[in-house]
Amino acid sequence: MSVYEYVLTQKDFVHKNDLNYPFEERGLQFGDGIYEVIRVYKGRYYLIEEHVERLFRSAEAVKIKMPFTKQDFYHQLDELLQKNKIDTDAKVYLQITRGSAPRDHAFPLSTEANLYAYVQDLPRKEDLMREGVSTITQPDVRWDWCYIKSLNLLPNVIAKQEASEAGCFEAILHKDGEVTECSSSNAYLVKDGKVYTHPAKKNILHGCVRMKVEQFCKEEGIPFIEESFRVEDIQFADELFLSSSTAEVMPIIEVDGKKVKEGRPGPVTRKIQEKYEKDAKIGEEASIFAK
Amino acid sequence: MSVYEYVLTQKDFVHKNDLNYPFEERGLQFGDGIYEVIRVYKGRYYLIEEHVERLFRSAEAVKIKMPFTKQDFYHQLDELLQKNKIDTDAKVYLQITRGSAPRDHAFPLSTEANLYAYVQDLPRKEDLMREGVSTITQPDVRWDWCYIKSLNLLPNVIAKQEASEAGCFEAILHKDGEVTECSSSNAYLVKDGKVYTHPAKKNILHGCVRMKVEQFCKEEGIPFIEESFRVEDIQFADELFLSSSTAEVMPIIEVDGKKVKEGRPGPVTRKIQEKYEKDAKIGEEASIFAK
Repeated sequence: MSVYEYVLTQKDFVHKNDLNYPFEERGLQFGDGIYEVIRVYKGRYYLIEEHVERLFRSAEAVKIKMPFTKQDFYHQLDELLQKNKIDTDAKVYLQITRGSAPRDHAFPLSTEANLYAYVQDLPRKEDLMREGVSTITQPDVRWDWCYIKSLNLLPNVIAKQEASEAGCFEAILHKDGEVTECSSSNAYLVKDGKVYTHPAKKNILHGCVRMKVEQFCKEEGIPFIEESFRVEDIQFADELFLSSSTAEVMPIIEVDGKKVKEGRPGPVTRKIQEKYEKDAKIGEEASIFAK
Repeated sequence: MSVYEYVLTQKDFVHKNDLNYPFEERGLQFGDGIYEVIRVYKGRYYLIEEHVERLFRSAEAVKIKMPFTKQDFYHQLDELLQKNKIDTDAKVYLQITRGSAPRDHAFPLSTEANLYAYVQDLPRKEDLMREGVSTITQPDVRWDWCYIKSLNLLPNVIAKQEASEAGCFEAILHKDGEVTECSSSNAYLVKDGKVYTHPAKKNILHGCVRMKVEQFCKEEGIPFIEESFRVEDIQFADELFLSSSTAEVMPIIEVDGKKVKEGRPGPVTRKIQEKYEKDAKIGEEASIFAK
């Protein structure tokens, strides 16, 4: 999973070993920056417009001046894959910080934003997507503006670490019992053929794959209901799943040591997974869900 | 206000121009770290034990393994001042991040924490402390665990920037009207000779100067009441002030364009300021409040 050689910066491509950050960098001292993780299948981006649009929305929300136009950025991101000769399943991680300045909470308007974007191999989590994953629940202690995809990720780190130490894939976050999302993915509950998920308010990330899940449900006539569910509703759920750019559409078969229904991925989750594969042009012949 | 030459790191002293961070650093990608700002008067630390104790508490809360003992750290911090020949009023900024690792929310237990600590001149804000400052109110959108002095400071940055753009010194933060603290300081209201401030729960920073304010009040027989006040209480306040390691004890004379009482620092605030000067051994002859 090592990083490919060429890293895109706001200036040019730089070899990964030459990329260093000064210690008075606002990303490093305040988490003053934003990021995206974009999925790549066989050398092609998936949902790149959605990610770039969200990046620009995040930048606007925190008043970071973008060092390029969207059009230029699409071009540069394409070059990033070409330059590194990517033809596998991979991800691009990119972040933009406000730049370097003498430390002060309030920011000078003149700093030049720092960008870096790099590529790593990322095979599809085939076994997990077929069989489902275990999760724990954790209190959601994050800030109120999680719709901004910012570098302030310490609460997410702590929750994910708790999951990891419990041998689980993810932590389902809740505010006083009301499920918001997971530490790095959106969460969904299926009951009586309907999909429930927290509305896209300011306190959750508006996932790019979440938008796709909504679209897939509509195409299939599956009601997609933006109403939050509660931790205690999980025991009555037919299915549970999560979604993100790296985990795709992932069945949840266990929560806090208790099985979801019979502890197997359900038909609604499977249907959405199959539609994801088609939409991402992974190819039916390559479906990991084929009998 | 430039940074003095020698920067203390977890390994040794490094020239400030030689200190660079790799781009896959958890501080830079997750804000996965903690920090302190320690006040220095004429080359002597003020409240150093309190800051170091809090640093170790923050580290424990986020499971960062400290690369040294408290005793070693005191020694190194002393050396930092000596090596840079500090004899002025200054501050030491220091931060510890979890270290470098391939990006993943959950963290490997084997990373080596990265420390840096550097010195900057910081003259006392004499005019402001004599005359008081203006503030605005802002919603507190931060996470629930602000008692951890972490690098996740984006909400603080946004609030402080709003204050700065309004020509003000600070932003007073409130949750649904209940004042928690300011963007980088604690907040206090004085009414009928009593000092009110938000209790030291998990959602505010337990300021080192705040501890001192409590002590000063007790010594002077001024009731120090840990009860939060509300934004709408401010119009009935006799005095308002804030405290931090860089702002000391600072009178607030205006909030959202409206004067606090008659728009002058009050006697309780002044008494606490004078006690601060004595406690920090700034010396009575040098008092900025002397007639």
